[in-house]
Amino acid sequence: MSHPLDPLAPNELRKAAQILRAHHKTTPIHFKVIDLLEPSKASLLAYLNASTQGSPAPPRRAYIYYHQQGNATLCKAKVNVTKGTVEEDRQYPEVQGPADFEEFERIHKACNEHPRVRAEVKKLKLPEGASVVNDPWLYGTDSPDVTRRLYQCYMYAVLNDDPEANHYSLPMAFAPIFDAHTAELVEIERLPRGAGAELDQETVPWDAVEPVEYSESLLGKPYFRQDLKPLYVEQPEGPSFRIDVRQITWQKWSFHLGWTVREGPVLHNVFYDGRSLFHRVSMSEMTVPYGDPRAPYRRKQAFDLGDTGFGLTSNTLTLGCDCLGQIAYFDGIRTTGTGEPVEMKNVICMHEVDEGIGWKHTNMRNGQASTVRNRTLVVQCTATVMNYEYILAFVLDQAANLHVEVKATGIMSTMPIARHTASPWGTVVAPGVLAVNHQHLLNLCIDPALDGTGNTVVYDDVLPVRDDPTVDDPQGCAFRRTTTAITQPGGYELNLAAYRTYRIINPNRTNAISGEPVGYRLHASPSQMLIMGPETFNSRRGRFTTKPIWVTDYRDEELYAAGEFTNQSTDDTGLGVWSQRQQSVENADIVLWHTFGTTHITRPEDFPVMPVEKMVVSLKPTSFFELNPSNDVPHSSQILSRSRVVEHHKVEPEPCGRCAL
Amino acid sequence: MSHPLDPLAPNELRKAAQILRAHHKTTPIHFKVIDLLEPSKASLLAYLNASTQGSPAPPRRAYIYYHQQGNATLCKAKVNVTKGTVEEDRQYPEVQGPADFEEFERIHKACNEHPRVRAEVKKLKLPEGASVVNDPWLYGTDSPDVTRRLYQCYMYAVLNDDPEANHYSLPMAFAPIFDAHTAELVEIERLPRGAGAELDQETVPWDAVEPVEYSESLLGKPYFRQDLKPLYVEQPEGPSFRIDVRQITWQKWSFHLGWTVREGPVLHNVFYDGRSLFHRVSMSEMTVPYGDPRAPYRRKQAFDLGDTGFGLTSNTLTLGCDCLGQIAYFDGIRTTGTGEPVEMKNVICMHEVDEGIGWKHTNMRNGQASTVRNRTLVVQCTATVMNYEYILAFVLDQAANLHVEVKATGIMSTMPIARHTASPWGTVVAPGVLAVNHQHLLNLCIDPALDGTGNTVVYDDVLPVRDDPTVDDPQGCAFRRTTTAITQPGGYELNLAAYRTYRIINPNRTNAISGEPVGYRLHASPSQMLIMGPETFNSRRGRFTTKPIWVTDYRDEELYAAGEFTNQSTDDTGLGVWSQRQQSVENADIVLWHTFGTTHITRPEDFPVMPVEKMVVSLKPTSFFELNPSNDVPHSSQILSRSRVVEHHKVEPEPCGRCAL
Repeated sequence: MSHPLDPLAPNELRKAAQILRAHHKTTPIHFKVIDLLEPSKASLLAYLNASTQGSPAPPRRAYIYYHQQGNATLCKAKVNVTKGTVEEDRQYPEVQGPADFEEFERIHKACNEHPRVRAEVKKLKLPEGASVVNDPWLYGTDSPDVTRRLYQCYMYAVLNDDPEANHYSLPMAFAPIFDAHTAELVEIERLPRGAGAELDQETVPWDAVEPVEYSESLLGKPYFRQDLKPLYVEQPEGPSFRIDVRQITWQKWSFHLGWTVREGPVLHNVFYDGRSLFHRVSMSEMTVPYGDPRAPYRRKQAFDLGDTGFGLTSNTLTLGCDCLGQIAYFDGIRTTGTGEPVEMKNVICMHEVDEGIGWKHTNMRNGQASTVRNRTLVVQCTATVMNYEYILAFVLDQAANLHVEVKATGIMSTMPIARHTASPWGTVVAPGVLAVNHQHLLNLCIDPALDGTGNTVVYDDVLPVRDDPTVDDPQGCAFRRTTTAITQPGGYELNLAAYRTYRIINPNRTNAISGEPVGYRLHASPSQMLIMGPETFNSRRGRFTTKPIWVTDYRDEELYAAGEFTNQSTDDTGLGVWSQRQQSVENADIVLWHTFGTTHITRPEDFPVMPVEKMVVSLKPTSFFELNPSNDVPHSSQILSRSRVVEHHKVEPEPCGRCAL
Repeated sequence: MSHPLDPLAPNELRKAAQILRAHHKTTPIHFKVIDLLEPSKASLLAYLNASTQGSPAPPRRAYIYYHQQGNATLCKAKVNVTKGTVEEDRQYPEVQGPADFEEFERIHKACNEHPRVRAEVKKLKLPEGASVVNDPWLYGTDSPDVTRRLYQCYMYAVLNDDPEANHYSLPMAFAPIFDAHTAELVEIERLPRGAGAELDQETVPWDAVEPVEYSESLLGKPYFRQDLKPLYVEQPEGPSFRIDVRQITWQKWSFHLGWTVREGPVLHNVFYDGRSLFHRVSMSEMTVPYGDPRAPYRRKQAFDLGDTGFGLTSNTLTLGCDCLGQIAYFDGIRTTGTGEPVEMKNVICMHEVDEGIGWKHTNMRNGQASTVRNRTLVVQCTATVMNYEYILAFVLDQAANLHVEVKATGIMSTMPIARHTASPWGTVVAPGVLAVNHQHLLNLCIDPALDGTGNTVVYDDVLPVRDDPTVDDPQGCAFRRTTTAITQPGGYELNLAAYRTYRIINPNRTNAISGEPVGYRLHASPSQMLIMGPETFNSRRGRFTTKPIWVTDYRDEELYAAGEFTNQSTDDTGLGVWSQRQQSVENADIVLWHTFGTTHITRPEDFPVMPVEKMVVSLKPTSFFELNPSNDVPHSSQILSRSRVVEHHKVEPEPCGRCAL
């Protein structure tokens, strides 16, 4: 029997499609997404808390995004797979659903084959053997009047047939727009190639340059470093984790590993040492606004979860590439336009990592040292959203910390620029290649359940004591933590000068040692928020980008920071709306959301493929436990570690190498 | 022949002591510190740049802190070991030198044996077999009138003779003060045990509690987790680095690995791919002010480099505890009071670490993926400063990034508190144990040499474009980087809202791709600066704590952010002074200093030994290279990685485990 939070199985997906088809009788259906509709929290908790094994599981349900044939209006149905019923079926005439692979392929092909596009390509006068590929981009938003579903195809040349030829090094200066439903060519937009917004009158022949490649076969073996020695991770007794379908136990942790098309991996029912910590932890959204005001770039703003999906774009991972040691893989699943399930093999990897020293103390009186290493469990996926990669990892450690890591890598979205030209909006990263400056703003959704659902978010400021007559502080060294409870949903600020941190507490449970309420502290990733002002589409489409911290009262199905439908959206229907509610969030079932990210001022060093830029958010126990949770980790020793000494002292050293400055 | 930057060898240290002794003829000398006095940068560069191997090396020199017998005045000499001369010999009547091991032992013993202290201990009525130990703390500062050199001994009980018994779990409520020169008892101060500053009239019998232990033998085997499986790092072909005495080459990097008693490991002459990056990178200071205004805590403020030394307190590292894989060790050296060298074995370890994915891209058209792993070189030491541990690591990666990591661990400084009492100044972390809130403020000293010594520090702000008539920005999405050069020495601010980052550039060299000056960006660790106000001793003793960024013109021997002498200091003689100079720092030989750290609101989870709290600062190339410096790293594959699949799908899964909320 499946767990209520397991992804839908192939037969369940087929059944969901069949139920909806039957419901619509003769009208053919094009499916965009079929995915698990999680049970209501009430029904899920009732099931999980039930002391008798015989208590009924909540019904398995699916949500379905679909179109009726020939109809551009997005529809959404909620289907009860267990009962075989359609619980809800609605039209959403005002929104655009996310991309799906078939649509993407159709546009890609339409663009490649369109005579007008081909005529434009011809004008490039590319060398023999060269071809042109296109990256269909979801249109973005630059006007509330755009109601058609559009893709803009950015064009690139490829000079050879290597499967990893870097077409992003050869951007061409026109970008056709296609209607996603009809595959009609709407317009061929020209792209600026100068410092300003001026356009060529006509597509000009390409300026022959050598592309910057990363392909091993194109670069050839002599190009590569020869002096990197192998490094293996050996786990002769296997990993320390245990897997029961998707229920994971490891080092006092337990959780259910969910997966959705939209979010990728999701942690549910996270416990440590038998105590409840989090009901659900997930990446809820990420948006990438670009700072170039020229058409058409001004409308470029990807919502990589809402528009596409971290699950949908997850890589099938390969042994030996993404992780070292003993690796467990988990599959994902998606559906085709006809509602057929497609297994996505090995989209999540899970393995243990040695993260260096976990804690150490040496008794300086006698030199006796105790060292504990920091073993972590890493649950990871890589999403390839067109040119770019995001590596998302949930990292659990033995000190009961939960870290969420995002590594940005892949290839930057590149645009053409004339040789010997600079742009205020980005950096020339290769000859003829402009990488526009942009932001990545992510939102992490934390549904806490610290020793139960009655939780509160508070913030602590650490400030000097001033003018307090009760404190004798002749030297002015006193500082004090002041704690403020969040009482209403809303967006909240960090304050580095006050070392402001947010803490989830259970006000009903007191730590016996400290006398403080049990809690977990959010170690936020302090980030520049959205640079664009509140009146911009960039801001209106995702208010979550404007504040680092959000608190809402819990409601079923409120999972996505910018709202459910982001593609070509003009207004946020997520945190911007939910945070306005007048509702107590004290000692209640609440959700904490954290927006973080990076402002990417591009550099040649980020090309052709960008070295990872790592962001980390951590949740750490704060008076949740009565002592260091990793106090019981066996101390490190050579027997456990099998390290080896490099005997450089014994080697006859060469004369000291001089380095010329 | 030694490199001019190698630590002094035993025979050189002996010779330095001998030269000074001869200089002072009959007056006996007590040596505190003898360490390398680095050559002037001019002479060093002249030597390193010399094209002929026959050019003379700069003379080997030592600086010596010492006392003449019976004289409390600190003296400092500069000795030319090569020539056998004393170049400078000065008295410093206004300052206190750092601690040394012999002094520490003397005070420790004096306190343990003093009849008045013993009489006080007797009043504690400790159980049979128990004993008392003391931690002699450098006195700190609470008045400009204290001219004696003082230690305050914090007293703790130990209930058994286990070599790792955690005495910090049993703090006692009195703290004798001793004169460091005479070993006289100055006073026995009582410590507050309540919520306020009130003191017991008399030392009261101890409140019997169970200490919280971390010792493996005290806790016994059944206490520990049984389910952690071994994990080994195997490097069958050895490490990828090469060691020539202390000159290291690894993955296009080269540097000289220095070591000083004060700073621990120091990177000199850091090059990447034959290009000069940094002349010297070192941790320059760290201070720990406490926020409890009660006597005597109000004077507690450690300067762990200036008062003691990260080198002096570095652990002798043990194979299998601190690192996995192939480990190279380097020794340090110190001297005794008689000027005899003492080898400090294995105080630096160097090894390679696999840091996960370095870069990755998947061509979504055909699924072809290229993944490069992120191999790093870690140069690490652990300093045990009494109760606390700092793990300092320089981490180099293949993308030409240099990271400086500090992990705080060890045991918090603990003070007594009556049972069932809370304090506004800290957290009760175990029964009867108060851990006072405090800050750790570190300063990293970066002496850049990007393609030469003519460098400038600039800062970039990333701000929206507003009211610029030359920019057509109908949607308000434009943002722009504005760059400002630092023209004068001073302390400078971060600004998260503007994504302000500091960048070192060489204005004389332009990146051929981007057209930007070659540079390295400082990825700062944004931190709360010193909480205490500018009028406090805390601030006056180390102005570096008040701003995150400092720039100075380079001067020989200006290495320590708070100045040379910090012990019982009342005024900063470092950045607070040097930053006032009117001196151009544009296209000049400059130094960039970064202050960062953490505000530690203590928690029971930090006791008995604190899980590492990690801080990272990075220096990343920005238009220094023409493409991703790690583009030539061989791609990852199973042949290189030897990973293994955990075949959980094939295992008959158990029924899904339910977790009760």
